[in-house]
Amino acid sequence: MLFIQSKDIDKLMTHSEAVEAMEEAFLIQENDDFTMPDRVHVNQGDNVLLLMPAFAGNYFSTKLVSVFPENSKIQIPSIQGVVVLNDGKTGEPLALFNGAKLTSFRTGAVGGAAIKWLSSENLHTVGLIGSGVQGLSQVQFARSVRNFAKLLVYDSSPEKSKEIGGIIKNEFPDLEVQITQSADTLVKDSECVISTTTAIDPVFSNRMELVQDKLFIGIGSYKSDMQEFPDVVCQSAEAVYYDTPMAKKESGDLAKPLSKGIIKEKDLRSLGSLIQKDHSIKTTGTVVFKSVGMALFDLIIAKNLYEKAKLTNMGIELSF
Amino acid sequence: MLFIQSKDIDKLMTHSEAVEAMEEAFLIQENDDFTMPDRVHVNQGDNVLLLMPAFAGNYFSTKLVSVFPENSKIQIPSIQGVVVLNDGKTGEPLALFNGAKLTSFRTGAVGGAAIKWLSSENLHTVGLIGSGVQGLSQVQFARSVRNFAKLLVYDSSPEKSKEIGGIIKNEFPDLEVQITQSADTLVKDSECVISTTTAIDPVFSNRMELVQDKLFIGIGSYKSDMQEFPDVVCQSAEAVYYDTPMAKKESGDLAKPLSKGIIKEKDLRSLGSLIQKDHSIKTTGTVVFKSVGMALFDLIIAKNLYEKAKLTNMGIELSF
Repeated sequence: MLFIQSKDIDKLMTHSEAVEAMEEAFLIQENDDFTMPDRVHVNQGDNVLLLMPAFAGNYFSTKLVSVFPENSKIQIPSIQGVVVLNDGKTGEPLALFNGAKLTSFRTGAVGGAAIKWLSSENLHTVGLIGSGVQGLSQVQFARSVRNFAKLLVYDSSPEKSKEIGGIIKNEFPDLEVQITQSADTLVKDSECVISTTTAIDPVFSNRMELVQDKLFIGIGSYKSDMQEFPDVVCQSAEAVYYDTPMAKKESGDLAKPLSKGIIKEKDLRSLGSLIQKDHSIKTTGTVVFKSVGMALFDLIIAKNLYEKAKLTNMGIELSF
Repeated sequence: MLFIQSKDIDKLMTHSEAVEAMEEAFLIQENDDFTMPDRVHVNQGDNVLLLMPAFAGNYFSTKLVSVFPENSKIQIPSIQGVVVLNDGKTGEPLALFNGAKLTSFRTGAVGGAAIKWLSSENLHTVGLIGSGVQGLSQVQFARSVRNFAKLLVYDSSPEKSKEIGGIIKNEFPDLEVQITQSADTLVKDSECVISTTTAIDPVFSNRMELVQDKLFIGIGSYKSDMQEFPDVVCQSAEAVYYDTPMAKKESGDLAKPLSKGIIKEKDLRSLGSLIQKDHSIKTTGTVVFKSVGMALFDLIIAKNLYEKAKLTNMGIELSF
């Protein structure tokens, strides 16, 4: 069994290769070439253990991920876990990954895939709302598919805005990074807005002129009572995409506008359907992409990382 | 995260310490001090992935185990997997174990606990039916709790009987090991019969005089259509014990006699109830113990192994 460390994940695969792996996952989903049981939730008080298995091709994987919200008070990550990749023909465990790192890597790559297929090739200004691990990951992957010149950053904590701004500037010296004082200003001045918060209520104003003709990438909301984007985003949208149909129920960013009749279920499409037809969207109107993630993404990124690690003799062989 | 290799498991804990760990698990079960959701079965054709989580005290664990029956045709173990132990307060993954090894180790220890509480201290002759990994494990743990002088071995394959007989003789030079030509002979000449086969139909004859006043330890049958012991075993029994109440449904050794009215559900008891009262059974009649296993056993053995590994600086620290 191969143990693939977090630091090896970044070495094994470029960001654009990871985006391609997520495109592979989207196509597998469109062709229905996979088995993915409902994720299992084991609740222990406020804490939860999620078990996320998926089968496709010659592999299967299981993510075990725990969400302990109180951890943040003691400076321990709330989300921790592992991903185990197995041989689909024999069941043999093939590789072990840090579940938090794999998740942030593939979630960044899913956002990157959305920007690749939904944004203008001349994208100039991107706005990032939220300054956590996923905020950084989204910017890294977005930059791997579009060479935008300017990044606006907003977080409710000015210190955290400054901190992530510094990290990004350090990684991309040619990128102009600007901290904004409000989310509304950020939205107004961006062509593409990526939101990565755990907000319950929308993070900017419900004003049509603010959101029109922009691309919105929703990453943070993963429960039906969490809504990062005000209703006007969906109301203004010419096209709304999701990563998995479960997003319609699992995220308030889609569930709430759907329940209010602002958007209709038949008007929502999977990003995979666009990739399958192999044509990027052509619109100057408002476009929305909402991601909630799924075990199939974990499986396909793990499979690609494992195959690259075997080819390049990376990872640590664990003698069982 | 600590990686604890298979070979380290045998070094970290004596067999009698492992039996004590299983007694701890039985008491936790009696006191209802645990959370154990139903195991999750993910079927892929004839193959199955089982996800088995359990929470107790300051830990939780998940066993991911795959059962690929066709593997035996290509000399690969049918059952493979991992066990992940986590910190119950933060969710942090603490340790990784080989799931097949941990399972065979704790299943042997459960059988050992049953013999400790249900057999005479003067036990002289034990009969082992079945020559697989679990056959060996049962003998090792039985010998750790009772210093019996003679072991009879039967397997439908004479070569395999001879092979396991040699391995056992090598490990216990003072034990008289004898291969029998039939299961009936083995039962007739043993005081305690341990059965570890994957037989669908009973492995010896349905004759009262064969089974009376003996102790039967049923390990192999884990499905309702698998029955190692003929009906007369339960019919003759003064006491029938199980490891977990699920055994009544999950094993044909209990489910079939129950459905025929040979035994009544109210007459079955958990081994834990005996351990809780802290008194061994006093009977010269027929006694049955049936084990199907549960995630709580994996958790408690993993917890004890992990704590010993930390104390003794064993295991390999995986830098996540």
